[in-house]
Amino acid sequence: MEKLKSFVEGKAFQGTILAVIIINSVILGLQTSQTVTASIGDVLEVADNICLGIFIIEMLLKMAAYKFVGYFKSGWNWFDFIIIITSVLSGLVVLSSLRILRVFRVFRSLKGLRGFKMVSSLRPLQIIIAAIGRSLPGISWTALLLAIIYYIFSIIGVTQFGEAFPDWFGTIPRAMYTLFQVMTLESWSMGISRPVMEEFTYAWAYFVPFVLISSFVMMNVVVGIVVNAISEVAEMNKKEDHEENGTADIKAEIDAVREHLARLESLLEKQGSENS
Amino acid sequence: MEKLKSFVEGKAFQGTILAVIIINSVILGLQTSQTVTASIGDVLEVADNICLGIFIIEMLLKMAAYKFVGYFKSGWNWFDFIIIITSVLSGLVVLSSLRILRVFRVFRSLKGLRGFKMVSSLRPLQIIIAAIGRSLPGISWTALLLAIIYYIFSIIGVTQFGEAFPDWFGTIPRAMYTLFQVMTLESWSMGISRPVMEEFTYAWAYFVPFVLISSFVMMNVVVGIVVNAISEVAEMNKKEDHEENGTADIKAEIDAVREHLARLESLLEKQGSENS
Amino acid sequence: MEKLKSFVEGKAFQGTILAVIIINSVILGLQTSQTVTASIGDVLEVADNICLGIFIIEMLLKMAAYKFVGYFKSGWNWFDFIIIITSVLSGLVVLSSLRILRVFRVFRSLKGLRGFKMVSSLRPLQIIIAAIGRSLPGISWTALLLAIIYYIFSIIGVTQFGEAFPDWFGTIPRAMYTLFQVMTLESWSMGISRPVMEEFTYAWAYFVPFVLISSFVMMNVVVGIVVNAISEVAEMNKKEDHEENGTADIKAEIDAVREHLARLESLLEKQGSENS
Amino acid sequence: MEKLKSFVEGKAFQGTILAVIIINSVILGLQTSQTVTASIGDVLEVADNICLGIFIIEMLLKMAAYKFVGYFKSGWNWFDFIIIITSVLSGLVVLSSLRILRVFRVFRSLKGLRGFKMVSSLRPLQIIIAAIGRSLPGISWTALLLAIIYYIFSIIGVTQFGEAFPDWFGTIPRAMYTLFQVMTLESWSMGISRPVMEEFTYAWAYFVPFVLISSFVMMNVVVGIVVNAISEVAEMNKKEDHEENGTADIKAEIDAVREHLARLESLLEKQGSENS
Repeated sequence: MEKLKSFVEGKAFQGTILAVIIINSVILGLQTSQTVTASIGDVLEVADNICLGIFIIEMLLKMAAYKFVGYFKSGWNWFDFIIIITSVLSGLVVLSSLRILRVFRVFRSLKGLRGFKMVSSLRPLQIIIAAIGRSLPGISWTALLLAIIYYIFSIIGVTQFGEAFPDWFGTIPRAMYTLFQVMTLESWSMGISRPVMEEFTYAWAYFVPFVLISSFVMMNVVVGIVVNAISEVAEMNKKEDHEENGTADIKAEIDAVREHLARLESLLEKQGSENS
Repeated sequence: MEKLKSFVEGKAFQGTILAVIIINSVILGLQTSQTVTASIGDVLEVADNICLGIFIIEMLLKMAAYKFVGYFKSGWNWFDFIIIITSVLSGLVVLSSLRILRVFRVFRSLKGLRGFKMVSSLRPLQIIIAAIGRSLPGISWTALLLAIIYYIFSIIGVTQFGEAFPDWFGTIPRAMYTLFQVMTLESWSMGISRPVMEEFTYAWAYFVPFVLISSFVMMNVVVGIVVNAISEVAEMNKKEDHEENGTADIKAEIDAVREHLARLESLLEKQGSENS
Repeated sequence: MEKLKSFVEGKAFQGTILAVIIINSVILGLQTSQTVTASIGDVLEVADNICLGIFIIEMLLKMAAYKFVGYFKSGWNWFDFIIIITSVLSGLVVLSSLRILRVFRVFRSLKGLRGFKMVSSLRPLQIIIAAIGRSLPGISWTALLLAIIYYIFSIIGVTQFGEAFPDWFGTIPRAMYTLFQVMTLESWSMGISRPVMEEFTYAWAYFVPFVLISSFVMMNVVVGIVVNAISEVAEMNKKEDHEENGTADIKAEIDAVREHLARLESLLEKQGSENS
Repeated sequence: MEKLKSFVEGKAFQGTILAVIIINSVILGLQTSQTVTASIGDVLEVADNICLGIFIIEMLLKMAAYKFVGYFKSGWNWFDFIIIITSVLSGLVVLSSLRILRVFRVFRSLKGLRGFKMVSSLRPLQIIIAAIGRSLPGISWTALLLAIIYYIFSIIGVTQFGEAFPDWFGTIPRAMYTLFQVMTLESWSMGISRPVMEEFTYAWAYFVPFVLISSFVMMNVVVGIVVNAISEVAEMNKKEDHEENGTADIKAEIDAVREHLARLESLLEKQGSENS
């Protein structure tokens, strides 16, 4: 059992699975082309099923290695499990559109890549990305703030413009989609605001503040992430600094001075007692 | 009276009001849906009025607690007061669209949330947001600069393109709205500048400089905020640093050295007086 | 003459002129409105001419104060001179459109404002803006790089798409305007690239690289300015730091220790000579 | 041979070639104008061929100087070689459109410019650009991540929307171009997403996540570059700092104190031995 576990976690096994994932991704890509499907569609179909078979074997081996219960402790394994189950079902039944989900397995390749040693030049940037990642939960309140702003503006939008522009402001979800479009500044004026202003002259008092507020909130998010990442990296550099050649050295030198003084004092005291 | 004040400022009271605000927001959201209104519209109407009643009671309690005059010292209370008054009036008269204003009460929930203890991980980002907030009044001169630029360009726009394009440059407010759209880069060329250029060949000499100037001013604002936030956070870290393990420690050590020397000196002087 | 100079440079004089500039700007704004012009157009005309008269008097006074030659040593004065001359000419002849230039005098108000004491909270941001200003000449090579990129792409554009799309790529200036639009990402794909791709299938190999390259160059400019401003501000803070509570203090303390030691040494030497 | 090499690498030679490149660029620009070509087209043709001749002579001289094999060790020389060969061929045969490639030679002028001494004010910004350049390979994994995201989304796009919208999602390359357009936020909603949503109601679940994910990845790239550049520049400043007036000075002073103490000790010991 231990042997199987070390085999499953070994580089040879992980590398093979990564290769199969990449091959499977290429097959899925080729299957989208009608000219390719017309000529070698059957071969791709077979190759796709072979890949699926290898994934099933991988899953079963892992389940055996981790004694079934341990397998489901990893989120990635759940991810694999669901994709394989839906792939098998879509192969048996007519849920062929679900096979698309298998494309997401490509993301597994990123996990696989982590197994290989990265070039050392990546390290500083990994620190920065980690700092960005750490600051994300901290800015979750911005998401709350943005949600409230979206909610307020979409209610106003639906009650004011809903009847005249049902496609854009008919329901709250539609209004929220429209507001998201406005936030990305895409056709917000020529496409949305100006036509609405032809019906409701003061619609600019709805759109211009929303553009300003949402831009400001997004700017805050970006600035917050930049500043946080910078201060974390600076903190890290400072720590290294202290250890290398900072104040610790100076303190050690001053300690040496004090020891010296203590020696002098004892010498003086000895002389004093000898004299008297 | 003091008892009422502490009750009104207590967590139980504030939490209840926050809950009512959220419930009321959901009701206002549901009322925008025609299918929901058709089936349980009456229930929502009643629930909405109950919420309004609770808000009125909250207002009266607070007025009592702060002796009426004290109530109006807080901007938030004025905000509540105006919303409740317009809500009551819109319930009596036909100003039903004014009820939308009540949605803005959701923002009060943010104030309410402040009462609860925040996760400590939020602290560094709160510092950054505070730094951004502090730098905002400082960049108000940019708003003035932008206002002057908008004014100059809108006067030029109205006098030059006003007659040919009344929708875009008919009046100064219209020209300012168009310039705001151009500043967000939305359809500035295909939608505005190219049609204008078909009438006035040299219109690019109006739009391209405006795009460059407004982009540059906005970039300055963002850079200013980023740099200010970073330097404030760095300043704060440095101060902590000094207290923690910085120069203060070294000074204390040197002081110890000097005390030691003083002791040695007195010892020597005593010996000298004994010898002589 | 010296008396006239100090009067001209005094706050009372500058404040009055600033007020006249603002009034004149408002008049120019009001003159763009047809309804306002219809009712009080004559009054505005007269007020406008009074403002012009005051500006002429201001110019003559300054010319007298700085003995005519000195007046033309300031760029701002040249600016005033040209505006007043064109305003006078456009009043006499039919060059009424030239009167727009007078609006630019509003920018003078910024100069005037500088005379008044600014709030101290502005200082850190002024430092940042100054740092941004200083880094601008340094990034002028980016402008050169961008000019070369624009030149290359516009020549390719004219020779390839010029005949089929004369409006967008007929001449080099037109191609440059189109490329500027593409750089701002405005309708670059739906408006320009997709229609071109219908004629020239491989046009994406022209537009996509241009979008990537120009975005990258612009990002470089922004990053360069941010980093430069931050490092300048950090440098400034560090200098203040050194003076305030940095290493200078520690050195002074160590000097005191050395003095102390010198005193001890002389004491010891005296004792030694007394003993022997 | 050494003489030829030093002549080829000399400023006079490089300056002349740079001048010819600029003249040639201007000629290529003028040739795009039909009015100019009509009047002095023949002159430009001759001048263009003279420039080409000079470039050929330059290439042959360099080949001689570096003994042919050494010439092809530089990427810039390969660049020149290919451009000249295609220019010559396009002159003989009907591949006139290939002559456009020669425009890219303008980029050589940047290399030439590097030979001249730059203004010292450029130095800090050169450091920043160098830091940005160094961080680019480090963010190459972001390109990989983006490629995977594009691949997954384009496969989903082709299989879902391919039949209904062949122009946008007919093949994987078309889907990738469309996704690139969506990433730049150009007409992503009014132009692409809304028409698709009319056929497939849930298409927003495809476009909105893609906009969010791609924006987030691009933001990460920008933040990563900013933070990396800042920390590199800070590192550099810190190093200079240490050498200038940092802890090294303090250590030297403390060493002086310790020497002083050693002298005192020996004095005391001498006195002690004299006394006893």
